[in-house]
Amino acid sequence: MAISILNETDLRNIIRMDQESLTAVEEGFAKLSAGLAEVPPILQLMVPENNGELDVKTAYIKGMDSFAVKIAAGFLNNHEIGLSTGSGMMILINSVTGFPKAILLDNGYLTDVRTGLAGAIAAKYLAPEHVKIAGVIGSGIQSRFQIEALYLVRKFLRLLVFGIIPEDVQIYAEEMRQKLGVEVFIADSYEQVVRESQVVVTTTPSTKAFIKSNWLHAGLHITCMGADSANKQEIFSDVFKHVDRIVCDNKAQCLRLGELSHAINDGIINSTTDITEIGELILGMKPGRKNVDEVTICDLTGVGVQDTAIARLAYHKACEKSLGIHI
Amino acid sequence: MAISILNETDLRNIIRMDQESLTAVEEGFAKLSAGLAEVPPILQLMVPENNGELDVKTAYIKGMDSFAVKIAAGFLNNHEIGLSTGSGMMILINSVTGFPKAILLDNGYLTDVRTGLAGAIAAKYLAPEHVKIAGVIGSGIQSRFQIEALYLVRKFLRLLVFGIIPEDVQIYAEEMRQKLGVEVFIADSYEQVVRESQVVVTTTPSTKAFIKSNWLHAGLHITCMGADSANKQEIFSDVFKHVDRIVCDNKAQCLRLGELSHAINDGIINSTTDITEIGELILGMKPGRKNVDEVTICDLTGVGVQDTAIARLAYHKACEKSLGIHI
Repeated sequence: MAISILNETDLRNIIRMDQESLTAVEEGFAKLSAGLAEVPPILQLMVPENNGELDVKTAYIKGMDSFAVKIAAGFLNNHEIGLSTGSGMMILINSVTGFPKAILLDNGYLTDVRTGLAGAIAAKYLAPEHVKIAGVIGSGIQSRFQIEALYLVRKFLRLLVFGIIPEDVQIYAEEMRQKLGVEVFIADSYEQVVRESQVVVTTTPSTKAFIKSNWLHAGLHITCMGADSANKQEIFSDVFKHVDRIVCDNKAQCLRLGELSHAINDGIINSTTDITEIGELILGMKPGRKNVDEVTICDLTGVGVQDTAIARLAYHKACEKSLGIHI
Repeated sequence: MAISILNETDLRNIIRMDQESLTAVEEGFAKLSAGLAEVPPILQLMVPENNGELDVKTAYIKGMDSFAVKIAAGFLNNHEIGLSTGSGMMILINSVTGFPKAILLDNGYLTDVRTGLAGAIAAKYLAPEHVKIAGVIGSGIQSRFQIEALYLVRKFLRLLVFGIIPEDVQIYAEEMRQKLGVEVFIADSYEQVVRESQVVVTTTPSTKAFIKSNWLHAGLHITCMGADSANKQEIFSDVFKHVDRIVCDNKAQCLRLGELSHAINDGIINSTTDITEIGELILGMKPGRKNVDEVTICDLTGVGVQDTAIARLAYHKACEKSLGIHI
């Protein structure tokens, strides 16, 4: 049984940060919240000697003829030897036989896209309709993908960025200015970003919270995508006491691994707190932003349904174009 | 960064059921019981519509420059369309960077070998020194690999087999007769196999126990490898009350997913029960068989250290012979 192997160049050519990819990922979240997805807990392996972590995610969506198993590694020492922190691949499995159909050697690209799109989907339903200033914390890969994705759904005029490595922030600002054609300003502090923006995306691997509740203001939406394991945190847990709406990608997972894990451990939220999943917004089971003043937050940890959605789209498009090698 | 891709034919040529492979897997178990392995819980995805299950296992062994992530699928309807139940692949990851080094498209072969070898290692330390009759329950793939592996460590004269599909058992008997050059007899019942053999290996995907405690006899060793999820069971749990020694591959995992999960749920064993890991036998931390009369049992669920061990050996040998393609 032949297996298609697609390389990163092919995958970058066929999968773009666009409406088609967004629709695919939306469908994944919708199936999740409709109870049509099997999403086992993430397999997490730590390699502490090398400051590394490897995660495996998967999700089977009922009725779909294939699903993805995604391997994603993050090794923080890599930059010392000139390598990117993240790497990985996706394996597309036949849902009927369990046999592999394709190996997507995306080196993390598809994860970057589907993660950015989750942020865009959160903003699509929760951000104010008109966003003048968008803010981003961090200047790494995801700060790029998140903001590019956000621009799909909100044509903001100005981007405000803050990060702890000034040179990286400079490069980031120049890149985004060229890519999106918007004004990009470098902020002096986390606080400035939050106070001046209508949408804020936090994209750091921080293990210490930095977003404070007294910076919140009417009409703000925050998407926090950095924390995806219990030791990471970007948002002080009391922020969750001061927002009007708490949304997340996968409730069970966020309560275990996301910002919500800190909020529940600190007693800020509990099992009766109203927490909405993105999929419920997509399905119309719960409303999006209710008014211009609402303060909303969305906690993202990354769910296997996103991988299955984007891997299936990539495979479908690769077949159409007869890309890849067959082994 | 190039990734080596090895196909099943290459892997079958370089990895054999032999002493070299056994030594590699032994080393994996030894590292596990020495506390030198990170083994996260297995990721298990169920696809009930298609009678399928997909497992992902991994283990990082401290100090080793690579580790495996293994995807193994078992889809029980496959035989209806002429496909094997099992499939899968291993991905070898660089322990320093997290980047993939090699993809081993073994289609489950390496898993079959390392699983057979776990049985052989159990028998090496626990079976009577002289085994006249070996018994096997089941006539699928693992009943072949288990018995071939067992023959590496115990040169039994006769094999007794029982299975529920008579035609398959016939084929099995003929195959093993030719392969090992031993007498092979087809038993009339589970009971006959257990009563007449000195070593019994159970290799079925059964969800109902069939091995009874009143069939046990002095000088018997049982290896049960079928049950690797909480719904599977081959051994009535009271058997564990009537054996002299309980051994397993990974205590935490067997108590959750193996025969031991039923024994603990039924109150036959508890947290104070003396349970030995195979690795402790290998390291000499605990003795193997103590006398000719001892009745011993070993519960196998399959551990990521076996995959890491066999995948590393395969990659090493492939590099030596310049096999595989590079992408």
